[in-house]
Amino acid sequence: MSSKIFFTPGPSQLYHTIPQHLKNALRENIGSISHRSSAFQKLFAEMKERLKDLLSIPDEYDIFLMSSATEVWERIVQNLITKSSHHFVNGSFSKRFYDFTKLYQLQSTATIGTHSKEFESFDLPENSELISITLNETSTGYAFDQKRLKALSNKYPDKLIALDVVSAVPAVSVDFSMIDTAYFSVQKCFGLPSGLGIWITNEQCLDRAKQKVVNNKVIGSYHSLPSLKKNSDKNQTPETPNILSIYLLLQVIKDMQTRGIEMIRNETKATLLYQAFENLSYLRPFMMSKTNKSLTVCVAEVDQDNHDLLNFLAAKGLVIGEGYGEYESQHIRVANFPAHSREQVEMLVDYLHKY
Amino acid sequence: MSSKIFFTPGPSQLYHTIPQHLKNALRENIGSISHRSSAFQKLFAEMKERLKDLLSIPDEYDIFLMSSATEVWERIVQNLITKSSHHFVNGSFSKRFYDFTKLYQLQSTATIGTHSKEFESFDLPENSELISITLNETSTGYAFDQKRLKALSNKYPDKLIALDVVSAVPAVSVDFSMIDTAYFSVQKCFGLPSGLGIWITNEQCLDRAKQKVVNNKVIGSYHSLPSLKKNSDKNQTPETPNILSIYLLLQVIKDMQTRGIEMIRNETKATLLYQAFENLSYLRPFMMSKTNKSLTVCVAEVDQDNHDLLNFLAAKGLVIGEGYGEYESQHIRVANFPAHSREQVEMLVDYLHKY
Repeated sequence: MSSKIFFTPGPSQLYHTIPQHLKNALRENIGSISHRSSAFQKLFAEMKERLKDLLSIPDEYDIFLMSSATEVWERIVQNLITKSSHHFVNGSFSKRFYDFTKLYQLQSTATIGTHSKEFESFDLPENSELISITLNETSTGYAFDQKRLKALSNKYPDKLIALDVVSAVPAVSVDFSMIDTAYFSVQKCFGLPSGLGIWITNEQCLDRAKQKVVNNKVIGSYHSLPSLKKNSDKNQTPETPNILSIYLLLQVIKDMQTRGIEMIRNETKATLLYQAFENLSYLRPFMMSKTNKSLTVCVAEVDQDNHDLLNFLAAKGLVIGEGYGEYESQHIRVANFPAHSREQVEMLVDYLHKY
Repeated sequence: MSSKIFFTPGPSQLYHTIPQHLKNALRENIGSISHRSSAFQKLFAEMKERLKDLLSIPDEYDIFLMSSATEVWERIVQNLITKSSHHFVNGSFSKRFYDFTKLYQLQSTATIGTHSKEFESFDLPENSELISITLNETSTGYAFDQKRLKALSNKYPDKLIALDVVSAVPAVSVDFSMIDTAYFSVQKCFGLPSGLGIWITNEQCLDRAKQKVVNNKVIGSYHSLPSLKKNSDKNQTPETPNILSIYLLLQVIKDMQTRGIEMIRNETKATLLYQAFENLSYLRPFMMSKTNKSLTVCVAEVDQDNHDLLNFLAAKGLVIGEGYGEYESQHIRVANFPAHSREQVEMLVDYLHKY
């Protein structure tokens, strides 16, 4: 492998064990086994079990395989919303999920935040069937306050709560009792190549989808919740999935279990980055309050256009993210994932000081 | 790699160069590069260009990335059909696409074949907007006669023709001028790990999707044809795709271009298998006529339950496919893909004789 270190917010640095796991995958014929074989069923079952353990997901939740977190947005729209949902928009990705509801001709609503500051209101229309919250907005580095999430969950017990945990888990702890569904993709905090999404749902979600069918609504086809559930209960999938990625995810979960979740959730690496953002004259943290500062995607405003800085770091073999969308040239985004060692983050901070 | 040889009809034997390509992918940081980077754009552009060359796809066709061929069925239903399509069903997979139309509450129709014999009729209702044909039914080993396909294409110039080329290309030559859209997954004749589908469409398909939007119909979200087209024209994708698989596909296409398409389309390996099916007393080819005998998924009926034979071969390190669905224990399915060498097929035939 080259000496580059990727601090991009996903795809990002691969977990350090990936090369060895790929070698083992070839030896174990993972690329050739049938998705209908008992070898696959065993692999899928163990992945689900260990993921539940790693993330403290209650037993009664289901874990389904998607191709991306983007796909999960569409499946939520198809399966869990009939007329309207409400979306807390704190950046481009939460905005895009909201946009999907319009493409599906729903009457969804949104609270659009100012991105760098806490939302001003947490009220929402009574008729929303589902509340969408993005725990860690990868585009802005906005961390949604889990206390607010708990308050929303308590205030609206009849509404489904969908939590986008892309670029958060397993580095950020999530209390699943507050939510009905959550989803992520593996190229962020799990340090895998892209091409796999994970969708976690509870029984209320399945009931909602079944009710839509009773009401003669279309809920999609192979990736409808009832189809996913029927297959997953047999440790199978409705289509041939990305088996190699499921294998790699299982191995990295095992590695993380061995390392210990507390080591993975170590916050001091983020502190190093935010301290640099505070102390350096040409940078300042984009988030105003500590509560909203993401621990995994650390975003800073740059005094001038970011390209000179990006090029300076690239010449040292350090690849960081530019800003997203409207912030493309004004921000830098630095991933602080479990794959990034403290030494690597310290090296980056050193170069930020040398710039 | 272990000494097993997979003749399963996909996932199957990996193309022999895959281990080296995986090593190179790690060295080139393919698992870490952003899907918004110029490195990705270059990769995607080259893959599309070389695939067009390998399969003789006319320039005006678009190539889009899906997660599976199963996904393409849903995208065709969403984008290309408003009320009704007609499906030639020659096995479980063509049947499943037809089932998807019912889940989307369309009034589609089907000609259900007897699986082992040529369809008796090629007529269809006048109001079908799209004709679905499966060139190579992986579940039964039925090859659709391309002369019939050409006749249908000539007879119904205003209907879109969707051709399932899963487990056919690049081993089977396809005249794209007869069809409007085609699709496949990479774990069959390309010898890749599963987790990527390819969707090929022409301008008539894009027009159809745009017309649905004008008529206020839902065509999906991130994977609608207009969204795919807008991104692909910039060599980008609507979501983070399976970049590693795109890389592997590009490398295997290059390998196949070097080897030469005529070598890959060599039919003599299939002849060896069908001769064995004819000559052995406990086997007979499932297809009645030569025209319908697949060159890539060779299916035989077994005198008795197939499990003893499967176990005998497995003990020699040869993994072949059991029957699909209703034929599970009555058939064997042997993949004859470009990844399978003549020597490997001869070894399998030898053991079929020794059984």
